[in-house]
Amino acid sequence: MRNAIQKMRDWLLREDNFLLISHVSPDGDTIGSALALALWLRALGKRAVVVCEHIIPVTYAFLPGTNTVITPEEAAQQAPFRNAIAIDCAVPERMGSAGMLFEAAEATANIDHHATNTSYGDYVIIDPSASATGELVFLLLKELLQMVPEEVRKQIAVCLFTAISTDTGNFAYSNTIPQTFRICAELLEFGIDIAEINRNVYRTVPIGKTRLLGYVLSSMQLLEEGRIGVTVITLQDVARAGATVEDVEGVVDGVRDVDTVEIAILMRERNIGGYKISLRSKRYVDVSAIAARFGGGGHKHAAGCDCMEPFQRLYDAIIAAAKMAL
Amino acid sequence: MRNAIQKMRDWLLREDNFLLISHVSPDGDTIGSALALALWLRALGKRAVVVCEHIIPVTYAFLPGTNTVITPEEAAQQAPFRNAIAIDCAVPERMGSAGMLFEAAEATANIDHHATNTSYGDYVIIDPSASATGELVFLLLKELLQMVPEEVRKQIAVCLFTAISTDTGNFAYSNTIPQTFRICAELLEFGIDIAEINRNVYRTVPIGKTRLLGYVLSSMQLLEEGRIGVTVITLQDVARAGATVEDVEGVVDGVRDVDTVEIAILMRERNIGGYKISLRSKRYVDVSAIAARFGGGGHKHAAGCDCMEPFQRLYDAIIAAAKMAL
Repeated sequence: MRNAIQKMRDWLLREDNFLLISHVSPDGDTIGSALALALWLRALGKRAVVVCEHIIPVTYAFLPGTNTVITPEEAAQQAPFRNAIAIDCAVPERMGSAGMLFEAAEATANIDHHATNTSYGDYVIIDPSASATGELVFLLLKELLQMVPEEVRKQIAVCLFTAISTDTGNFAYSNTIPQTFRICAELLEFGIDIAEINRNVYRTVPIGKTRLLGYVLSSMQLLEEGRIGVTVITLQDVARAGATVEDVEGVVDGVRDVDTVEIAILMRERNIGGYKISLRSKRYVDVSAIAARFGGGGHKHAAGCDCMEPFQRLYDAIIAAAKMAL
Repeated sequence: MRNAIQKMRDWLLREDNFLLISHVSPDGDTIGSALALALWLRALGKRAVVVCEHIIPVTYAFLPGTNTVITPEEAAQQAPFRNAIAIDCAVPERMGSAGMLFEAAEATANIDHHATNTSYGDYVIIDPSASATGELVFLLLKELLQMVPEEVRKQIAVCLFTAISTDTGNFAYSNTIPQTFRICAELLEFGIDIAEINRNVYRTVPIGKTRLLGYVLSSMQLLEEGRIGVTVITLQDVARAGATVEDVEGVVDGVRDVDTVEIAILMRERNIGGYKISLRSKRYVDVSAIAARFGGGGHKHAAGCDCMEPFQRLYDAIIAAAKMAL
């Protein structure tokens, strides 16, 4: 690991033309980590272009440099890039169409914390014990931060704190390790305002999403002495709240948070017909097993599936499966 | 500070009969800090009684030892206590009626992080730069933790992590300092499950409170291009949600979290007539100035007042004051 970090450092210092690739459906970790690296490279006068196939969620618009992120098509017009770095991408496919630019580079690197990473690339830093790729980027840059101006160091710290905070659910998930907190102590010493970061990331909710959450919390049904919480959102409900389909993301957590609930179920009507079902569990139920029976998948505490059956048949089947799983 | 810690350590090691006093309206910091100290003292065979005038919120029932906390009346029957420690109490009045037991002790101590602490007591550890009294209890016990069994060390770490997490809004407030994160790294090394702590503290909401939040988020009104968010909760609304008046606590934060909102206003009808008004601001407005004009007070970002005026006159006046403050 120590060795891998030193090898990548030498390469970053030696080269001067980099493409940094964030994964599709970008999250705070892939974006924060890519921008942190880009800010450091640019401050040294190097070329560092950040690319992402999908639009960066507005939540991350406050990160320094977000407005410089371009699409793979735009990046292709600015080729060639002699060096490319995949950031937080367990497999090359996570780069989306930016994968072509990665393949075209003369040298490639791969920085990631997913246990499933396939170790592709010439320079590789992978540590599944890290809570976030942002932790690894910090360890990579740590001894090189004095090379850039104080203001840039602070911007880098904002990006990396956001990366770590989002991938740990703001220090709520069990992937948080002592090193995570120690790195955050060091990031805080660069003078970042974590209250402001928190407001931007967690406390800036569109009114449509707020009204939709209100609807879900008011209308949810509790079954089996409250151990199952279930809510149904139709396209009409989404429209009435002034929300978008993306706003549905995450509202199922409000159902799971009810004290008695072990399994939370959200059925959301799809534009293309049928329903998208999101499942959450609090402690002991493995909802990925439920999802698998409906052709979906996921993790123990968070899973989902897409189904085309008529509403009532689907509802009855999913509730029956949830009751069995209790 | 170093000196004050050593003096208090010597006293804790020398004496063997302690009363630990948490403040009225107990929060995670005063309870977690008191229980941590009590667990350490008890593991050494000393007597350590934790007292609190008010009932411990059910949120903290998971903390090891919560069931041993007694009322000042119960404690009085178990007197005398040779030594008493006020925990997280800026002034003696914060102890409520347990203050009499504090005064009756032969030696007293005062551990706190409030800048307004009046430095009462024989042994004093006060550091306003600490995010929580839990940080100070950790610094106090740190070098003494090896004296108690591993299982007790872990229980102490659960209490202190909860103290620190709750007083920093789970590392979201600007009182979080590098030392806060460093201490949490050390607490994590005792093998505590911070995901479980987070579920207990933040993700275990009664159904009544959930439905009430749902009602507030669905029914809030936005004024002044969305910069003011206002919601009214009648006693009937509380009853209809199956909630209690205590459940209203905190739901105003959901109004403030709307992206466009700078000032959030919640008017809650009171059992005794009139309205309790809660005010929150996101960035620049000082809501304590608004509250002061209605006979209330608070901080820049969180304030409140109790008013007896008829609803419409009060509503109009508070909205007018909020518009002026924008």
